[in-house]
Amino acid sequence: MFDFKEHSHRRYNPLLEQWVLVSPHRSKRPWSGQNEKQPTESLPEYDKGCFLCPGNERISGDKNPDYTGTYVFQNDFSALLPQTPSLPVSDDTDSSLQNRLLKAQNARGISKVICFSPKHNCPMPALSIEEIENVITTWQSELKLLSQDYLWVQIFENKGEAMGCSQPHPHGQIWANDFLPNELHKENVALKKYHDENGSNLLLDYALLESSLKERVVVENEDWIVVTPYWASWPFETLLLPKQPLFRLEEMTHRQSHHLAKILKSLTVKYDNLFETSFPYSMGWHFAPYFKDNRSIEHWQLHAHFYPPLLRSASVKKFMVGYEMLAEAQRDLTPEQAAHKLRDLSEKHYLFD
Amino acid sequence: MFDFKEHSHRRYNPLLEQWVLVSPHRSKRPWSGQNEKQPTESLPEYDKGCFLCPGNERISGDKNPDYTGTYVFQNDFSALLPQTPSLPVSDDTDSSLQNRLLKAQNARGISKVICFSPKHNCPMPALSIEEIENVITTWQSELKLLSQDYLWVQIFENKGEAMGCSQPHPHGQIWANDFLPNELHKENVALKKYHDENGSNLLLDYALLESSLKERVVVENEDWIVVTPYWASWPFETLLLPKQPLFRLEEMTHRQSHHLAKILKSLTVKYDNLFETSFPYSMGWHFAPYFKDNRSIEHWQLHAHFYPPLLRSASVKKFMVGYEMLAEAQRDLTPEQAAHKLRDLSEKHYLFD
Ligand SMILES: O=P(O)(O)O[C@H]1O[C@H](CO)[C@@H](O)[C@H](O)[C@H]1O
Ligand SMILES: O=P(O)(O)O[C@H]1O[C@H](CO)[C@@H](O)[C@H](O)[C@H]1O
Repeated sequence: MFDFKEHSHRRYNPLLEQWVLVSPHRSKRPWSGQNEKQPTESLPEYDKGCFLCPGNERISGDKNPDYTGTYVFQNDFSALLPQTPSLPVSDDTDSSLQNRLLKAQNARGISKVICFSPKHNCPMPALSIEEIENVITTWQSELKLLSQDYLWVQIFENKGEAMGCSQPHPHGQIWANDFLPNELHKENVALKKYHDENGSNLLLDYALLESSLKERVVVENEDWIVVTPYWASWPFETLLLPKQPLFRLEEMTHRQSHHLAKILKSLTVKYDNLFETSFPYSMGWHFAPYFKDNRSIEHWQLHAHFYPPLLRSASVKKFMVGYEMLAEAQRDLTPEQAAHKLRDLSEKHYLFD
Repeated sequence: MFDFKEHSHRRYNPLLEQWVLVSPHRSKRPWSGQNEKQPTESLPEYDKGCFLCPGNERISGDKNPDYTGTYVFQNDFSALLPQTPSLPVSDDTDSSLQNRLLKAQNARGISKVICFSPKHNCPMPALSIEEIENVITTWQSELKLLSQDYLWVQIFENKGEAMGCSQPHPHGQIWANDFLPNELHKENVALKKYHDENGSNLLLDYALLESSLKERVVVENEDWIVVTPYWASWPFETLLLPKQPLFRLEEMTHRQSHHLAKILKSLTVKYDNLFETSFPYSMGWHFAPYFKDNRSIEHWQLHAHFYPPLLRSASVKKFMVGYEMLAEAQRDLTPEQAAHKLRDLSEKHYLFD
């Protein structure tokens, strides 16, 4: 008899229209590979060598103001710049191999850094609800500003050295693009298809389904739900969804913002409690792109992805390597097992509370 | 004036039908994030604690034979098993949300390990041409065997701790699947489309184009070419291509095998020489799937991808994290710059020769 907790199977990710291989029996595998370095000392509230602390000088020579809430500045090493010159236009009638196989496109944009708090030692789970609301408000004002010029604005955070973060000072990033990046393009196609076929919104349908089933719910309040999606690739991957239609982050009511701050706090506290460590992840927001024509965005629904790499402990992560890069993402524990573990954890932080 | 070496742009990957963001000016960014651990001591030729050395006992209790060439055995912690029970068949007329959004599929297969050599301290670049030919022959016989039962057979190697490898003994893996994994599905669609539209083979066209242009060629011989593809995501990513039509690894002539061994040696020696370290990567083979119906595979061409994570030195790697996971792969140095560096390196190994 087939048992989802025991037998290998594939699950379908309707957002990216691809599969993930689930091999639950493989959790028993021993690990003698790389261990992640653990932060050994606790951080001070202010670090004079930090580029992001208030009043300090950055590598560019600019000086940070004595900020007290959030602080946004342009990345000193932006991957995207607004003034990039235009590529020569390619000739559509040119059927040479070169023209067919070597295709390039303009990429303009802007990259910003957002410090979540002046305190060097206060990541998201250590912030108060008010401070998190302040982060949300900052995201919203940046979106209002950048959406005037750009088609897409990616808000994200790389947390922890294991996720390529090089500055321990709590911060996120905002990269605005004059193009629709791959992942957004894929979601746009899949959400549209579902909407056309079913006359409803994929992610709203999904939020309500999970809210009724309960088995993959990590935490839930009146306006929001966090689940380990049925198709999660990373061991403790989660998806944060509103329970009402909501195209974009700028369109929330005060109540929704407040509840969002609360659920962000609950989730990040649980993450830290899981292995009693400052839990690394990359997280980011997806929502209706700022199409400049009048095309419909009805199929869109705001959501945040959390992609954390840890698998078994603070130092053992999942490697998405050989098979995963060349063939298909593969996971060991099931999303239901992950949800169960996260759900059972306290919302009181093991260190900060 | 637009300059590919200076200005941000996107490049199109025709194999996966997606884009990559190239930001050459960003190479100047300082790095104060995670450093990869460097292997400090040289390995012995035989290690009595190694699960893969000849004559040793594995974790399963099985004992390795005193092998002298390559050695293949079934993975003691396989992600896939041949005897997995069947999933209950889903009801197509059931239009419930659950049936629509929670889709699963059978996944059967087998996972094997292939030791490249009895010598614990001899990775690919330290093997002789004859020993590499022996590895190729082993790949071929496994393919002949496994293709009878399976639709896809993924041959790959995770090399180095940075790529999730937990056993330093030089080895690769072979995962056979009764389904077509995502990446193969994408390539199948893209190769077919190109073939239908142009009447020629995308990867053969590409190999010949690069062979004439030279600027992205890393190493080349009569039968094979290694390039940093125009659309490479990883800093020193390469693509190994035959210069004649070739559907699969089992179909090579003796000369092609011999030249393949030579080019694998050249490439892996160059990789090691780049940062004078045992260069980590995930590599693997893609070729025509073993479709069980009589459908055409004319659009297919054998190729190998090498995905190495290092960026600036033996200890600083590129992190494909926040923006990359949520939006689009991003690279700093251009593929042309990477090819130039690799091409100029000696084919004499900094340590073994
Ligand atoms: O099979 P191994 O070497 O134990 O494991 C390694 O390769 C696998 C296939 O790419 C991955 O799923 C694992 O995350 C990685 O650690
Ligand atoms: O922008 P940072 O923090 O310097 O860099 C980090 O995030 C970027 C965006 O995800 C990645 O491209 C880098 O590889 C990563 O190290």
